Amino acid sequence: MTVKVAAVALDTLAVVGVGLIGGSFAAALKATGAVRHVIGAGRSRANLDRALALGVIDAVAEDPAAAAAAADLVFVAVPVQQTESVLRQIARHLRPDAIVTDGGSTKQDVIAAAERALGARAAQFVPAHPIAGAEQSGVEAASALLYRDRLVVLTPTAATRPEAAARVHALWAVCGARVLDMDAARHDAVFAAVSHLPHVLAFALVHEIATRPDASELFSFAGSGFRDFTRIAGSSPEMWRDIALANRQALLAELDAYRAQLDRLAHCIAQGDGAQLASMFETARSARARWLAK
Amino acid sequence: MTVKVAAVALDTLAVVGVGLIGGSFAAALKATGAVRHVIGAGRSRANLDRALALGVIDAVAEDPAAAAAAADLVFVAVPVQQTESVLRQIARHLRPDAIVTDGGSTKQDVIAAAERALGARAAQFVPAHPIAGAEQSGVEAASALLYRDRLVVLTPTAATRPEAAARVHALWAVCGARVLDMDAARHDAVFAAVSHLPHVLAFALVHEIATRPDASELFSFAGSGFRDFTRIAGSSPEMWRDIALANRQALLAELDAYRAQLDRLAHCIAQGDGAQLASMFETARSARARWLAK
Repeated sequence: MTVKVAAVALDTLAVVGVGLIGGSFAAALKATGAVRHVIGAGRSRANLDRALALGVIDAVAEDPAAAAAAADLVFVAVPVQQTESVLRQIARHLRPDAIVTDGGSTKQDVIAAAERALGARAAQFVPAHPIAGAEQSGVEAASALLYRDRLVVLTPTAATRPEAAARVHALWAVCGARVLDMDAARHDAVFAAVSHLPHVLAFALVHEIATRPDASELFSFAGSGFRDFTRIAGSSPEMWRDIALANRQALLAELDAYRAQLDRLAHCIAQGDGAQLASMFETARSARARWLAK
Repeated sequence: MTVKVAAVALDTLAVVGVGLIGGSFAAALKATGAVRHVIGAGRSRANLDRALALGVIDAVAEDPAAAAAAADLVFVAVPVQQTESVLRQIARHLRPDAIVTDGGSTKQDVIAAAERALGARAAQFVPAHPIAGAEQSGVEAASALLYRDRLVVLTPTAATRPEAAARVHALWAVCGARVLDMDAARHDAVFAAVSHLPHVLAFALVHEIATRPDASELFSFAGSGFRDFTRIAGSSPEMWRDIALANRQALLAELDAYRAQLDRLAHCIAQGDGAQLASMFETARSARARWLAK
């Protein structure tokens, strides 16, 4: 373990956006001794002070540019729509050998943003997506253990420096994550189906109930099934607005497929087709059970 | 407590359908000493033998009629579409002072079935719905603690004997449940919104993913959000087919409202209307947070 840590050790890490994702990355690297110094930057001074008090970061930078200027690795962990603006702010300040990576849930748009904002330095950018959804947000929720046994997907492009991708890979491994590479377009299609769509569906259900005149009576009868189904509707509205728009093409395709699925179910119910309904429910139940067993 | 138990004590309880719901009711009443003897009846002899071995029941009856003939109270805990058939089997065997109650998730259809099957004896029937959804089923999952702090809704009709309703109310209270009365039509509308619809939505999502050529890759990237969102798709297909059909009018109305909600969301995403999206997500998130805080 000591050898491994030494091989990936960083002197200075800059985290732009010290929330759940950015804060947990810093906390994990600090806990394993893989980083010497962490500088935080972000929109809220109060949040950065809190991160400092919690020991998640060691110093607060005036702005992302100042943080990046001092860093061997910059982790941009902001809602995806802000990625381009952050990258533009740091572009001229990056050291030639520094690495930039991100934690965004969508990848094609982030890669396009990096190419626009960083130009030739986009070679120093390693697009990444740690799969560590939690409905909590903010540095208070950050944990050195968040990424243990979680998946981190890297979507390097033809332009990405292989050494930069290897370094980011190794750092995530130090955090305890399983790391794999994937094509960015495939990444976005897969996560539209298994993550972005369910989030939108959960928000839609709670919104539907919450905006009715009898909302409070309805909520009073909602039980544990409703609670778990809607857990992801407790997620950050800003983050999910950005994801929905950043990955809109794939998400709209998923919404179409899902609405067609609901049309078929409604048809079965209206027709009283119990055999077909039971068959669909059973296919779902057993597929889910097989998935959980893995 | 001793006084309370004595006041509601039963000599013989018959449970038709000794699964999670029926088995937990028997187990809770036995654990509190509120019942002397429990007779089980059901479709599967192996399941009844298991219930006997677990001590959830004391004896196995040949059929529902034999169980009912010996009982002070009959608890019918079968998928709702089977309720009428069970009630027909026991109708002529019920003691004049016996009470019949059920655990079905829909109430108008069960009341209509009881009126058809029991005739004048429908006065002895107390329609009830214990809200204790769990994706597990079968007597193995039964627990004397299942109903502690859970809600049980009674939907007595004008024909229901008040003493029978009071007795069923008291027995559920002994199980640790909060008990309240509600109009059957309102019950069905409320649970269509907060329970039946989410179940159908979860089954639909897993079915959509499971039936794709790339299902196994998609599942390999599904995380904890997907797991919780789809937990209720682990529920019994037979039970949920019955509920969907029994409550089809209210459920179809909910499906229509939900599809309209999805149409609005898809429109916002297609138009890039981030402000409206964020507003819908925030309304949902904050309503859910207020609900959880209660």
